[in-house]
Amino acid sequence: MPETKDVSIIVSTLLTLLQEKKYPTLKEILVTMNPADIASAFEEMDESRLPVLFRLIPKELAAETFVEMESDSQELLIRGFSDSELKEVLDELYVDDAVDIVEEMPANVVKRILAQADPDLRKDINDILRYPENSAGSIMTIEYVTLRPEMTIKDAILRIRRTGFDKETIYTCYVTSYRKLIGFVTVKDLLLAQDEEILIKDMMDQNVIFANTYDDREEVVQKLSKYNFIALPVVDSDLRLVGIVTFDDAMDVMEDEATEDIEIMAGMMPSEKPYLKSGVFDLFRHRIPWLLLLMVSATFTGIIMTKFENALAAQVVLAAFIPMLMDTGGNSGSQSSVTIIRALSLGELEFQNIIGVIWKELRTAVLCGCALSVACFAKIMLVDRLIMHNPNVTLLVAFTVCLTMILTVMVAKVIGCTLPMIAKKLGFDPAVMASPFITTMVDAISLMVYFGIANLLLFRT
Amino acid sequence: MPETKDVSIIVSTLLTLLQEKKYPTLKEILVTMNPADIASAFEEMDESRLPVLFRLIPKELAAETFVEMESDSQELLIRGFSDSELKEVLDELYVDDAVDIVEEMPANVVKRILAQADPDLRKDINDILRYPENSAGSIMTIEYVTLRPEMTIKDAILRIRRTGFDKETIYTCYVTSYRKLIGFVTVKDLLLAQDEEILIKDMMDQNVIFANTYDDREEVVQKLSKYNFIALPVVDSDLRLVGIVTFDDAMDVMEDEATEDIEIMAGMMPSEKPYLKSGVFDLFRHRIPWLLLLMVSATFTGIIMTKFENALAAQVVLAAFIPMLMDTGGNSGSQSSVTIIRALSLGELEFQNIIGVIWKELRTAVLCGCALSVACFAKIMLVDRLIMHNPNVTLLVAFTVCLTMILTVMVAKVIGCTLPMIAKKLGFDPAVMASPFITTMVDAISLMVYFGIANLLLFRT
Repeated sequence: MPETKDVSIIVSTLLTLLQEKKYPTLKEILVTMNPADIASAFEEMDESRLPVLFRLIPKELAAETFVEMESDSQELLIRGFSDSELKEVLDELYVDDAVDIVEEMPANVVKRILAQADPDLRKDINDILRYPENSAGSIMTIEYVTLRPEMTIKDAILRIRRTGFDKETIYTCYVTSYRKLIGFVTVKDLLLAQDEEILIKDMMDQNVIFANTYDDREEVVQKLSKYNFIALPVVDSDLRLVGIVTFDDAMDVMEDEATEDIEIMAGMMPSEKPYLKSGVFDLFRHRIPWLLLLMVSATFTGIIMTKFENALAAQVVLAAFIPMLMDTGGNSGSQSSVTIIRALSLGELEFQNIIGVIWKELRTAVLCGCALSVACFAKIMLVDRLIMHNPNVTLLVAFTVCLTMILTVMVAKVIGCTLPMIAKKLGFDPAVMASPFITTMVDAISLMVYFGIANLLLFRT
Repeated sequence: MPETKDVSIIVSTLLTLLQEKKYPTLKEILVTMNPADIASAFEEMDESRLPVLFRLIPKELAAETFVEMESDSQELLIRGFSDSELKEVLDELYVDDAVDIVEEMPANVVKRILAQADPDLRKDINDILRYPENSAGSIMTIEYVTLRPEMTIKDAILRIRRTGFDKETIYTCYVTSYRKLIGFVTVKDLLLAQDEEILIKDMMDQNVIFANTYDDREEVVQKLSKYNFIALPVVDSDLRLVGIVTFDDAMDVMEDEATEDIEIMAGMMPSEKPYLKSGVFDLFRHRIPWLLLLMVSATFTGIIMTKFENALAAQVVLAAFIPMLMDTGGNSGSQSSVTIIRALSLGELEFQNIIGVIWKELRTAVLCGCALSVACFAKIMLVDRLIMHNPNVTLLVAFTVCLTMILTVMVAKVIGCTLPMIAKKLGFDPAVMASPFITTMVDAISLMVYFGIANLLLFRT
């Protein structure tokens, strides 16, 4: 990434100018920069310098930069702001950004923010905070353009020019009648229309795709992405327009949701902080619960091993194949579970598909299991018998291992595809049913199959 | 998801109308629908009906619907089209969509497409096809609005109205001088400006963020998302503007990249087909290579076990703890590797951070390892000794297990964080270094540590 280098050059330039107190030059550089870049540069600096730097930039740019910073820097800045400075920044924020900030701050900072926000903003923030976490309502913004159906295109453009300044997007305008959402027009349609006197109601698209305030934010993102919209309108239970979710917020949600899924799938509690900002204790807290839980569940595997201790003592050679069988089972299961979890979270699969999914996985498992056990048989014959000359690895042992392999892969794939779908149906996060969990289950089952088959083949004869 | 139900209702309505040959009513319904919804409905239908349905809808809507369909349905439709029908659809496509379709089709279909495309489109398609897969050039579109610096706002709006019709977005317009990108303006700026006579060069934003044609598509998405742009301009090596990547294509890339990472992390070859469209043999082909490779690598684990066969035979109780130690090691390692892989793919981490990362993971590992081994010790004392009365589980065995636990977690976390960063540095996909790979390595190491410690503690005394 070229940016990293750029940032460190910028940071050192800014620092030099700051030390030499060349504030006008500093300001000149900062105003040409993009807020996201200023924020990246500021994040690299010593925290004590932030307030000085911040006061150098014009208030609109300052607010935009503020939004782009990490929450701990934001907190620090707010604590450093005077009441009037805080008010100035708040006045420039979009409501959804203000809400995002409020959600991350400790109670005493929130109190100060709400005290300094003007009454309208305070009311809007409180309204949005009432929606459940991860709902469409909680991520929407209320700064959008509405038009009335009886306006002409000319009226509409005038209205956009008059009210568009503080809207998060003007490019899709929503047509409402008694606050109910009845259609939408795009600025492209308005600009490219041949006749300015056409009425909005005659040109608007009445097939409006929208979300409800209580819909999951993941659904919002899927809709927005499916229809390639710049923004998706959000309505309340009476179909009244109450907000919009813009594509840039949707992209952030998409990234967060993917990260969250990946973390949960790897047996971690999801974290919102970027890695370099997370402390060792943060990492510990997010990782230890699953490690402990999974370690304790491995007790069952231990108990199974103990039960077959005599078999093992009689044929120690069996132990040598346990890691391979367990790993292959775990890998097969996690392939299926991860495929299904991703398909569920992209909305490609529903619970009603479960029979078809199991049937497909079962057939795949037979193919994979047979291929694996042929390879495994060849490996045993070649490596263990021909090369290592291990006299304990008999043909029967090889058969035991290969048969266990096929059965384990089948069980693993079926469990791997079934559990996430059941979890989703029961209202849990399917991502929990990924590799670590599946591996622990498959371990226990594969051991039982292994010793079961060994009992039949090796100890009966 | 409510859509699934909607789709099946729509499909059955459409089918009834089709059987009753009520084509005008059918057409009336279809024209009110969104192309993405028509495509979903068409995908559910018997393939033989597609051409008839397709001919019912106006050609612009038909082209938009065509773009939204899966590639196998597209292929089927193209094969069913007459040359003039194919030409009509192609004339309506944006170049980037045409390229996407061409990339998915078999050679003979591509030949027909290129033969029917008009010469300009054919040249454009060929130009874009020359860029490497997954580069900015390969996902860009060339339908954007350019302005000249000496235009007034009024001129600019006139130009947009005249040329905007077939542009993928008009909302960000790029200012070029001798084809070089020198700035950009948004339609919001143009519409909201107070004076129509202001020159573009006096109002444009000169701080243009752009990508190069050969940049990785993942970088394009990261930039677009970082700066919240509707589109990101793409320039060639002489900084000449050659295309743009719009937010909707970026969202698709973001989703694809996350899916690809997740699949690779779970030990699968990435697949582009949605799950329900993938055949059993597809799934097999994508899954078996890693399963085989990992199974063969487990040979090392087997060899280690065989080497310590005598130790195992003397103390069979040791075998009972192997699954728990291996699983905990695997889980610890995959937590670290997955965290690092995700941070790398979001651009939060660079190779230069490697020392800091190892140090952070090592401290986290000590915390996790100690917590786990305390819990493990308690579990052994409680379950194995008090409840199960297993006389073989001595205090020394418990110490051996707990000490191995701490060391395994440390090794696992260090390997887990190091390998993805090294892979990235060497130009490989870091996602390969996820759970399955790490698990296999950690298994072998944890066994060596386990038997090493057992040798010291159990067999020396």
